[in-house]
Parts: sequence; structure tokens; C-alpha cells
Amino acid sequence: MTSNKKKVVLAYSGGLDTTYCALYLSRELNMDVYTVLGNTGGFSDEELAEIKKKTKQLGVIQHTAIDVTKEYYEKCIKYMIMGNVLKNNTYPLSVSSERAFQAMAIAQYAHSIDADYIAHGSTGAGNDQIRFDLIFKIMAPNAEIITPTRDLELSRETEINYLKEHGIQANFEKMQYSINAGIWGTSIGGKETLSSNLPLPEQAYPKQVEKTDPEKLSIEFEKGELVGVNGQKVAHPLEAIKLIEKAGAAFGIGRDMHIGDTIIGTKGRVAFEAAAPLMIIKAHETLEKHTLTKWQMYWKDQISNFYGMLLHEAQYLEPVMRNMETFLVDSQKKVNGSVTIKMSPKYFEVEGIESPNDLMSDLFGKYGETNEGWTADDVKGFTNILTNSLKIYHTVNQE
Amino acid sequence: MTSNKKKVVLAYSGGLDTTYCALYLSRELNMDVYTVLGNTGGFSDEELAEIKKKTKQLGVIQHTAIDVTKEYYEKCIKYMIMGNVLKNNTYPLSVSSERAFQAMAIAQYAHSIDADYIAHGSTGAGNDQIRFDLIFKIMAPNAEIITPTRDLELSRETEINYLKEHGIQANFEKMQYSINAGIWGTSIGGKETLSSNLPLPEQAYPKQVEKTDPEKLSIEFEKGELVGVNGQKVAHPLEAIKLIEKAGAAFGIGRDMHIGDTIIGTKGRVAFEAAAPLMIIKAHETLEKHTLTKWQMYWKDQISNFYGMLLHEAQYLEPVMRNMETFLVDSQKKVNGSVTIKMSPKYFEVEGIESPNDLMSDLFGKYGETNEGWTADDVKGFTNILTNSLKIYHTVNQE
Amino acid sequence: MTSNKKKVVLAYSGGLDTTYCALYLSRELNMDVYTVLGNTGGFSDEELAEIKKKTKQLGVIQHTAIDVTKEYYEKCIKYMIMGNVLKNNTYPLSVSSERAFQAMAIAQYAHSIDADYIAHGSTGAGNDQIRFDLIFKIMAPNAEIITPTRDLELSRETEINYLKEHGIQANFEKMQYSINAGIWGTSIGGKETLSSNLPLPEQAYPKQVEKTDPEKLSIEFEKGELVGVNGQKVAHPLEAIKLIEKAGAAFGIGRDMHIGDTIIGTKGRVAFEAAAPLMIIKAHETLEKHTLTKWQMYWKDQISNFYGMLLHEAQYLEPVMRNMETFLVDSQKKVNGSVTIKMSPKYFEVEGIESPNDLMSDLFGKYGETNEGWTADDVKGFTNILTNSLKIYHTVNQE
Amino acid sequence: MTSNKKKVVLAYSGGLDTTYCALYLSRELNMDVYTVLGNTGGFSDEELAEIKKKTKQLGVIQHTAIDVTKEYYEKCIKYMIMGNVLKNNTYPLSVSSERAFQAMAIAQYAHSIDADYIAHGSTGAGNDQIRFDLIFKIMAPNAEIITPTRDLELSRETEINYLKEHGIQANFEKMQYSINAGIWGTSIGGKETLSSNLPLPEQAYPKQVEKTDPEKLSIEFEKGELVGVNGQKVAHPLEAIKLIEKAGAAFGIGRDMHIGDTIIGTKGRVAFEAAAPLMIIKAHETLEKHTLTKWQMYWKDQISNFYGMLLHEAQYLEPVMRNMETFLVDSQKKVNGSVTIKMSPKYFEVEGIESPNDLMSDLFGKYGETNEGWTADDVKGFTNILTNSLKIYHTVNQE
Repeated sequence: MTSNKKKVVLAYSGGLDTTYCALYLSRELNMDVYTVLGNTGGFSDEELAEIKKKTKQLGVIQHTAIDVTKEYYEKCIKYMIMGNVLKNNTYPLSVSSERAFQAMAIAQYAHSIDADYIAHGSTGAGNDQIRFDLIFKIMAPNAEIITPTRDLELSRETEINYLKEHGIQANFEKMQYSINAGIWGTSIGGKETLSSNLPLPEQAYPKQVEKTDPEKLSIEFEKGELVGVNGQKVAHPLEAIKLIEKAGAAFGIGRDMHIGDTIIGTKGRVAFEAAAPLMIIKAHETLEKHTLTKWQMYWKDQISNFYGMLLHEAQYLEPVMRNMETFLVDSQKKVNGSVTIKMSPKYFEVEGIESPNDLMSDLFGKYGETNEGWTADDVKGFTNILTNSLKIYHTVNQE
Repeated sequence: MTSNKKKVVLAYSGGLDTTYCALYLSRELNMDVYTVLGNTGGFSDEELAEIKKKTKQLGVIQHTAIDVTKEYYEKCIKYMIMGNVLKNNTYPLSVSSERAFQAMAIAQYAHSIDADYIAHGSTGAGNDQIRFDLIFKIMAPNAEIITPTRDLELSRETEINYLKEHGIQANFEKMQYSINAGIWGTSIGGKETLSSNLPLPEQAYPKQVEKTDPEKLSIEFEKGELVGVNGQKVAHPLEAIKLIEKAGAAFGIGRDMHIGDTIIGTKGRVAFEAAAPLMIIKAHETLEKHTLTKWQMYWKDQISNFYGMLLHEAQYLEPVMRNMETFLVDSQKKVNGSVTIKMSPKYFEVEGIESPNDLMSDLFGKYGETNEGWTADDVKGFTNILTNSLKIYHTVNQE
Repeated sequence: MTSNKKKVVLAYSGGLDTTYCALYLSRELNMDVYTVLGNTGGFSDEELAEIKKKTKQLGVIQHTAIDVTKEYYEKCIKYMIMGNVLKNNTYPLSVSSERAFQAMAIAQYAHSIDADYIAHGSTGAGNDQIRFDLIFKIMAPNAEIITPTRDLELSRETEINYLKEHGIQANFEKMQYSINAGIWGTSIGGKETLSSNLPLPEQAYPKQVEKTDPEKLSIEFEKGELVGVNGQKVAHPLEAIKLIEKAGAAFGIGRDMHIGDTIIGTKGRVAFEAAAPLMIIKAHETLEKHTLTKWQMYWKDQISNFYGMLLHEAQYLEPVMRNMETFLVDSQKKVNGSVTIKMSPKYFEVEGIESPNDLMSDLFGKYGETNEGWTADDVKGFTNILTNSLKIYHTVNQE
Repeated sequence: MTSNKKKVVLAYSGGLDTTYCALYLSRELNMDVYTVLGNTGGFSDEELAEIKKKTKQLGVIQHTAIDVTKEYYEKCIKYMIMGNVLKNNTYPLSVSSERAFQAMAIAQYAHSIDADYIAHGSTGAGNDQIRFDLIFKIMAPNAEIITPTRDLELSRETEINYLKEHGIQANFEKMQYSINAGIWGTSIGGKETLSSNLPLPEQAYPKQVEKTDPEKLSIEFEKGELVGVNGQKVAHPLEAIKLIEKAGAAFGIGRDMHIGDTIIGTKGRVAFEAAAPLMIIKAHETLEKHTLTKWQMYWKDQISNFYGMLLHEAQYLEPVMRNMETFLVDSQKKVNGSVTIKMSPKYFEVEGIESPNDLMSDLFGKYGETNEGWTADDVKGFTNILTNSLKIYHTVNQE
């Protein structure tokens, strides 16, 4: 027996906004609500079970958790590592990048059940609304988009009160920060991040410093991809990410604040903790400095900087992204080797690398000390020719 | 009474190579040797006096120390701060940038005394030889360049033995690392830096951790230039740099290893400590994230990345450098405010900024929470138009 | 005596859309209509008088023509010349660039008379709507924007019928192409430009080939700005542009089709004729090839390409534009000399340049034939060092 | 029976310099001379036979012509088309690009016969010496390089006299211009190209205008590669290039002067005729404007501009070139369709394109006239959001 009600698919995270939306869509708009959680590695099995249970209270017809972590790695994280992508030299695009994969999974689900509507809980003041809207419009063009939080300009208080009125139980206190967790980092917004001058207090970070004695960690790469940790091969790069995250998080490594330009033209500030992303990228970049040429580094930086910008700005489906990914993969053919990191409370140092493709090779002399393969006269000739253009410029212009 | 001997001006630092060269030029080549030390802020008055005294032993006719620190700041450091210049995201170009100013001062000196020769002590395996050669050729074209260390392919041992034979006293033990100090950082080369995998041992760094309890530091900028520290105005930005260096060095902040491409096509690795450069640049960059637009940040990065590359590669006199500096200065009109840093042993965090030009203004809503000045419908329209190009692409190409 | 009616300022060109709007605003919305024509050099005095006369028929309270040509030159054309700006290697941004100056003049006028509304006649399918809207919102934030053509989704036929019904006389036949003329070129849209495969017919171009025998033209620059034509100094660069336009237009020089990305994400195609812009830019660029260094050319191209993109996309007020202009001006210090062009029907050739700052100087040998200032051995040394990085790469990687 | 003489492989073109070198190496240096001509499509069978015959007179042991045209297309021309590569917006890199393929073929030949020496006839004043030296050093590291013209600093007159003295017959008059022909264009140097102000006289161009009535030409592309001309499929893109060259050359299309920076820091000027390259690139670029997105065009330009610069500067073997080629190929997936050109004496116009991947699709409205898929309100919302960053900037900074 099919319902006469309209079907709505709701992008669901279990947070305040989407909890409100689920109830609102079911109760006020009288729709059949299908919640979908796009898991990018930020939820444990227990959390997923707990969330599923809660959706029952909200009148949800069916709740589905889709694990998109693997796809997220294969189609995005891999390239962010290859590109050493840190937005504004700081932020590993933890949230920005995963939204696309959540949105695509949800759009496909909506299409598969022939939904009339597709909903998300984003406010009108951030980036996520654009990321969801844009992908829904392209991949689920027949479903109309509903966004209660944005349309009704709801405050957190209003939402909380509505839920209380309808007898929904939740730890509303805990919700003073908005926390978003995924395999590629956790972002924390609220209170201090709304100011320009305040740091987040220590206890606002989900992960706390547990170790004090420095430890070493080695990360192994093949063709720019993670293949091992501390000398042990991993079955899949995601496994390496989890191991590295665990190691770094125990030292409270990877915290920082990101201030950047939103898609809607405002400035936004967010705190994050991302031990694995920061250590992996710094390790990978160091390995590249040893194995790539100057112009390979230069052009990789050019491309991946823009790749990160477009990713941040909801442009994952822009075709130039595919062209850029091809470049990045091709650039990694010699990025092989292991990198040693020393972890201390709150910071880490890259100690060095070993690579069969290391261009800092003894075959050609020792930097600053001895030269093999060229003579003093060669360098003099080199400098003489190198000077030509400036000599001409300064002579002609008498400067 | 004038000497019949040929006059040679030697770029002199007091290190092993230039000590050898002074004696060699005087004794073996029978020249009148004028040593010139281009001080970029790395020598105390005591050290300078000591060095002067030593030159007497070496048969030097006249020793001159030229303080180029102010010119170095006005014509270079200022722009490296404005451009947040960190080579390969790491190295503040401590040595790379100061060489140009030492070379120019020495070339001018050589010109002023009508020298027949101009000499430096660089080996044939590094970057410095190109930096000296190139500027000497342009600014002192009538003086022939002599480079004993490079031409004779001398080892450190050979040089030491030669000095000992001629009764020169020096702390030859201390010379196992080659250390270069200036206002914009100290570089340390030797032993481990000749490998790819070894870190420098703790004790090889000239400055050691002295403080353990975290301290705050505030840095004030006006139009992108340093104007104060901890709320106290400074007479000149150089004073601020010294204060910040002192504060950070006590925590051992600012150490790292740089691996990069030399001008002669090899890879080189060097350790450095540069508390002030790293804290100033990170502070300045954070202030810019609050006060500049997205495209200003983007283009500043483009330009200053290349500015750093050209500076590193001995191209300070390339005219495009002047054009780039104009851009950088113009971009700083609104970069005003103070930045708070928290220093801990070996690392620091930027806590926040205050600026009259902060674009993260409450006037236009709070990021992620509330919007002022636009509506939900505006964003929907925005996203609908933003989707156009992708919608067309995917529809036409049926993807 | 003041009217009780609301005041509206209408951006007016005398074309179909704005003629419709004037009548509509006055008659249907019962407003006091102030028309303002922002003249960027595309109207003769006779045309301006004719247009003023027509506005009376439309019930306009007051018509004002503001000549913004000089400001347009000083604040924009000058930089497009310095930057050799041709969008997609083709289009001198004739319309794209002038809109900003029309919009700013109109916004200022609206502010000065304290207008309630500000109106333009753009459709919802092009770029101009964004250019007007955006500048009005920033510079006349208190005036509400009205856009009848866009809001009512009017066809040209509907507009024509409405005007006829109200007894307005006009050459409606002539209006089959939409033509926009300014000092920096004339654009022509309609019919064939709506297809991808058809060229514009010969007679659709306002200017026709009048001369067949080739003629020479020389253009003189000082610091990148136009200072003379055919050896005669000009009082202002605008005078030079007019002389060059007259000379080139007689040969039908400067026609082409531009296909580009609109701000709203669609592709748009437009024909144009722009003899002066194309000859000036090609002449200026040739002079730069002789007087600037390789990296100056490279970075000028980078910056001016993006400058053109932002200009096209209504971002004239973006602060990075000012930073870029500073760079461009600074790059022109040595761009002095004269350039000889040979004009033939429909095309032209740059024959050569003369410049006191020509870097192709005999002082340093003749390209490909003789070298002064360096030896064969210098080049061998140069190549040997230049080969280092590739030799290392190919040796280490055994390729 | 093997000779006791040393074996030298000489890069041979039949021009003055290499004719001199062949005789000099054989007679003065008493070597066994093996001449190798790397044919990039610039020699007919008759010319090749004639050249072979002449080498006998010069005492050459063995002459070999290697046709590298196909490899040159597959590994280089293809990418220059995909990248629309025109150095300094003008020059299709006719000579610059083919040298690498000649050098590689000659180096392989030298390796195969175990040559002691490898020689070329370049002077010390141009780019070619670097292109040959660099590739020889990497691909034939065991053969020592000899360059008589460069080492002896020979004038053309000295070379001519030497040949005459030894009874060599040649059309020495014809040699007043140095002409280099290949499938991707012909360059002409000498006399006027040594000045900055003189154009090449009409008769100096090998190909002359033969047709006066305009003709149409259509060029067909699939994935960015040439697949047909005038509706006829071709067996290989090289066939298309020849057909297009023949068609364009009859109109004298494709002549221009290039002024650029040499690898050794001087400025060089050269004339060229390249009908096929210029028409193919302009056609291809127009097709891309219809089928690629804005950011694809932008990044293709970035990459191919630098690709052209590195190619010009002898860096074909730099690994970043391979990465860039991967990007270019990937960008061409939708570059399908035909382009119509109208050829007239000395110039051509692109009339339009037809493509199944044309993004200027009627599905989404007509540019500037009607919109489908969005409303006036959408655009207003779009502009309102787009204005945010500038509104904030100008409000905060009170500008």
C-alpha cells in the first residue's frame, strides 16, 4: 500500500537542525520523511545505531545510513593528498570536501525512490546550503528542494523549543558547538569562532592530549598514495589514515583555526582538529620535495590550490576538476618512499625521508660542499649567460 | 704612496672559507686584500670587533664592516612580510635574500676603491656563488671575479691545514656546521643536512629552549608593516623583529628543515631557526585573511610565491621584482591591526586578530548562523544561476 | 514645487529597451522619470541632441547626458592597453568595460537627486543586468532597482507594439541588431550571433571598407600610454584613439566574433568592430616584447588576463583591481617608442618598432649570428649546469 | 675492417653551417663523419636525394635521413594544438619544437653506432645550440659534443670561402636568409630580422599568394585531434595538416614576425610562415570556446602557455611536460565538431562551428534575449549575494 503523502528525502546528521527538520517535515508538512545519513567516516557503529533509533521518535518512515567513505577517498581525499591541499595554507577542507559526497549519495537515493522533495537543514548563512543545493539541482533535478531552517530563519533556541514541545529527548546542552566529524577531520563552530580574536578553549576540542613523550611515526607512500604505517603495509589507504589519526590525536596534533571566504561573500571562521590530514600532507609534501622537479612542484601547487578553491566552493562537478585530477595522478609516478615524523604534544616535526627516487643523490655532489659532474668553469659560464638579460636591461636603460 | 700590487675586495664573513681566501689572496696571489663584511644583523658589536682583529693576522690591508640591515629591510624583508614569503611553504629565505644586499654593498665598495678584483669564498656546489657572481658582474663589471675555494675545489680539511701551517688561530672544531646568521634567520648546514633522512640534533641549533610556560605576544601592523609589539610602538620595524625574535627564540620556536632546488639544478637541504620570520609571517597572513578579499589573497600568493622563487635564484635585480613590490605595497592599504600569538616550547598558535578593517563584520550576519542583508530566496536564486554552467554542461553531454 | 510622485533614474541609451522603460515607468508606474545617458564616446553631438528630443515624447521629466569618456580612459582603457587585454584572445571588452563607468555615473546622479528608484533596461539573459545591479547596489544602496524588461520578460515585439500604441515614432526596422558603440569598440548582437555557425553579414557592420591601397600608420607610446600618431603629438590619448580608429575603420579592420562565458553561466556570442583597440593593443604588445624582460611579460599576461576576466564579470570595484592597475603602471616605465603598422583591407601587420629602450640591442651580438659578451665555453658551461636537474632526474629514475 | 679514426655523428641539414662542419670534421679533424638529417616534414624526396648526393662530396662515410614527423606529431604537435600554443601570442614554435625530435633521433643514432663524438652546426648566439647540447648530454652522455661553428666563431663568409677552396659547389647566393622548414611552419632569419623596425620583404617568403577569391575551408576535430578537412576524413592528422597548409599557403596566410627571449637572455626576432598551424589553432580554440567551461579554458591557457615556454627553452624532457600533456589530453574529451574558415589573401576568418557538445545551447535560452531555466528573481538573488563581499569591503572601509 502506498501512501498518498508526498515523499521527502532529508539529508540527516542527527544534529539539531536536521532533527528539527525531520519532525517539521513529518508533522507540519505532513510528508513521508526518508532520512539519509551520508557517513564519511565520522560515525561509529554505536553512534549510527543510536541515530537510527532516534529517527523513529521523529516520525521518520525510513532511515538509511550510506557509507561513502571509500568513494570519498577514491574520488577526492586521494587528490587532496596528492595536491597537498590546505585552504589558505591551513585548512584541509575537512567539511568542504565531504559535503559533495554526502550530497551525491543523497541525490541518488532520492532518485531511486522517486522522491518529490529533497531537504537539508543548512542555514542561509553558510557554505553548506550551496553545496547541497547545487548538487541536488544537477543530480536530482526532479525533486524540489526544501530547507526549513533557512526558509524560516530559525534560531537554535526556536528549534530546541519546538523539539521539547514535541517531547523529543536530546542532549541540548551539548549542542553549544556545532561539530562535524569525518575521516578527513573534525570542524568545530560556535561561540568563539564567531569572533575574530578568541581562540577555542581547550575543552571544546573533542580529542584531548593523552601522551607527553615524543613518539616516531613513519608513513609509506607509493605513487603518492598511502601504503603503509610504521613499516606495516595497509590493506587500503583509509586504514592508514585511521592509524595515523589515532597516533596523532593522542598528542592533540592538528588543531588550528581557519578564516576564509564563504561562497556567499562573507568571511567565516572555524576551528578544526585534523591530525591525520596535517601529518599526511606535510609528510607527502616533503617526499615530493625530494622526488619532483622544481616545475613539477610549482605546477602542482598552482593546480591544487585552485582545485581546493573550487572544491570549497561547491564546484566538485566542474569538469576542470577531472582534468586537474589527471594531472595530479600523473605527477605522482615517482613519489615513492617513507617519511619519518616525530610527534610531540600539540606539534610534530618531519625528520626526513627515504626514497628510491630521491633526487638529492650523492651521485651529483653534496649541496654546498662538493660538485660532481660539473666544474667551476661551467658555473662561471652558466652565470655569465644567466646574467645576459639583466646586463642588457641595465645597460640599455642605464640603471 | 700607492702599492704596485693589484687590489682585491673580498666578501668576508670570518668563516673558514673566507679566512682561507684572505690569506691565500694576500700570500699566494700577492694582492692588496680589502675585506668587507656585509652585516645583515647577524653580528654583535663584539663579534665584529673580534673579526676585525683577526683580519690583521691574515695580512689584510683594510677591513670594513658595512651594516646593510636597514636597506635589507626596506628593499626586501618588508616585501617578504607583505608577501608571506615562505619558500616551499617552509623557509623564510633567510640566507637567499640577504646575499643580494651583501653583494651589492661589496660591489659598490669595490667600485669606490677602483678594485682590480672582487672575490668571494663560495664553493662550486651551492647557490651563493651565483648570487655573488651575478650581482658583481652587473654592478662591478670592471672587477674580475676570483673564487679560490671554487676554483681549487678545496676541502674544508685542506683549508684548515693551510691556515694552521701559516699559524692562524681559530676554533676549527666549531666549524663542523656552516652557520649563517642574519636578522631574518639563521641557517645551519653540514653533516645531517647532507642526508635526506636525518634531523639536526638538538644541540646543533644555536638557540635553545629556555622557557616552558606559555606566553602571549601581540604584534601590531599598519599597512602591512610592523609598528608595535605587545602594545608598545616601535621606532622602526627592525626593532620589532628583534623583540619578536627574542621572545620566540626563548621557546625554541621557528626551527625546520628546508629541501629545495638549487639554482644549479641539484636538491639542497638546510636546517634553520627563524622564530621572528615564522611568527611575523603567520601573524601577518592571518590579519590579511580578515582584511583582504579572496582575489587579493589569491593574487598576492601568486606574485609573492614567484617573488620568493626569483629572490632565491639570484634575480633580485630582475625588473619584474620592482613591479611585484608595487603590487604588494598597494595590497596592504587595509592590513591594519594586532595579532595575538601564544608561544609554547617549540611551537606557537595564532589566537586571533583585532582590526578596524576586519571584513568578518557582524554587520552582515554571523557565519553559519544568521544572515543580514540577504534572504533565503536570494541564496536560492544565487545557487540557481551558479548551477547554470554545470547544468548546461551535464545536460548537453548527458553526463 | 515638488512632485508627490516617486523619482526614478533610468539608465538610458535611446535603444528599444530603454525607450520602452522610460514610457512604462512614467505612464504605468506613474513615476517622475529622469533619464541619464552615460556617453563613453559612442554618440555624436547630433545623436545626443536627437535622443534628448525624443525623451520629451516619452514623458521624461529631465534628460541628462554625462560624458564619462575621459574617466573611462583614465580608470580603465589605459589599463586595458597596458595589459593588452583581449578576452579569450579576441575581444577588447568593448561593452563589458564601459558599463561600469556608465553605472557609476548614473548611481552618482541618482544619489545627487535623492532618487527613490534606479532603473535599467537589461534583459534577464545577459551580462549587463549584473553589471548595473551590482554597482547600483553598492553606490546607490538607498535606491531600489527596477528592471521592467527583465521582470516582465518582454519580447522586442511586445515592446515595439507598446511604443506604437502610444504613438512613439522610431525606426523600429533598424532595430533588428542590437548595437552598442563606445570609444573602445562597437558590439553587434542579434540573428546570426544567436547561432554558433553563422558569421555576421558584411552589411551588418556599421563601418564599411572604404580604402583598398595599403597605408602605414605609426603609433607612439610613452610609459605605455598613447602620445602620438604618425609622428604628431596628441593632446590626450583619447585623441590618438580617435585618429587610429578613423584610419583603421576605413579599411574595415578590427572585426571579429567573440564567444565567451557570461556571468550567469551560459555561453554568449557577439560580433564586434574595434579597429583602434586591436591595432593599439597589438602595437603596444610588440613594443613590450622589445622593452620588457621575459618575466615582466609573463606576469603582465597573468595579471591582465585576470583583470579582463574580473572586468567582464562586473567586478570593477573589487579591490584587487586597484592592486593590479598599480602593477601594470609600474611595468610600463620603459615602454617607450613608436610602432609602425601597415593597414590593408580587413587586416593589418605590425612592421616593426623603434625604441630607446629596445633590449634587442646590437651591443650584445646579433641573434643567431654573432655573440658579444660571452664565449662558446660560457654557453657550454651554461648548458652543462642547465642539464643538471634533468640529468639527475633521468639518472636516478633510470629513464 | 674497421677504421682507426674516431666516429662523429653530425646533425645535418644541408645548409651552410652543417655543410662546413661535415667537411671540417672529415678533413681537419680526420674523423669518420656520419651525417644524420632529422626530417620533420620540411624536405621533399627530391630534396632528400639531392642532399644525400652532396654529402658524398664532403667525405661523409654515411648519410642517413630519419623521418621523425610522425613521432613529432604524436609527442608534440598534438599537444601544441590541444594547448593552442602560440609563443607570445604569435609564434607556433615551428623551429623550437622540432629541434627536440631531431636531437633525440640523432642521439639515438649516435648511441647505436657507438659514436665517439656528436656534432652540430649551431652558432653561439642562438637557441638551437642549447636544444642540441642539452638533449645530447642526456641521451648520448658518452659522446663528446663538437661544435665547430660555435667554437671557431666562424662567419658565414669564412665558411663559404672554406667550402669554395675545397671545391664544394653550392648556391651560396641563396643562403642570404637562413630558412628552416618543417611540418609545423617555416622560419626565416637574416637581414631585416636583425633589426627591430624592418619587415621582411614579400619575396623573402618561400610561399607566395596565388589565389585572390576567398574560399571556405572546414576542419574537423575529434577529442581535440584533426580527423577531417572539408568533410573528408583523413587517415592521420598529419594528412590534415598538409591539406590545410596547402589551402592556406595559396593565400599567403600565416606570415608574421616573432620577437622573443632566447634561452641565453637576449632578444631574438624571426619571420615565419605557418598557414596550417595558425588556422588549425584558431579553429581549435574557437571550438573549445563552445565546448569547454570557463575554468577549463583558463587552466588550459595557464598550462599550455608554460608548456610552450619550456618547449621553447629546450626543456622537452622536463617531467612536468608529461604531466601537462596528460592534462591537455583529458581536457579534450568533448572537443568534437567542425569549424568553418573563410580564407582571403593574407588573412582568414573563423565563421563558426558545429558541435554535438556545443554549450551555447538553445535549451537554456538565447544570450541577451531570453532565459529558460531561471527567472528575473533568481538573477536578483544572484546579484545580491554576488555583491556581498564588495558591499562588506566598501562598508567596513567606508569607501
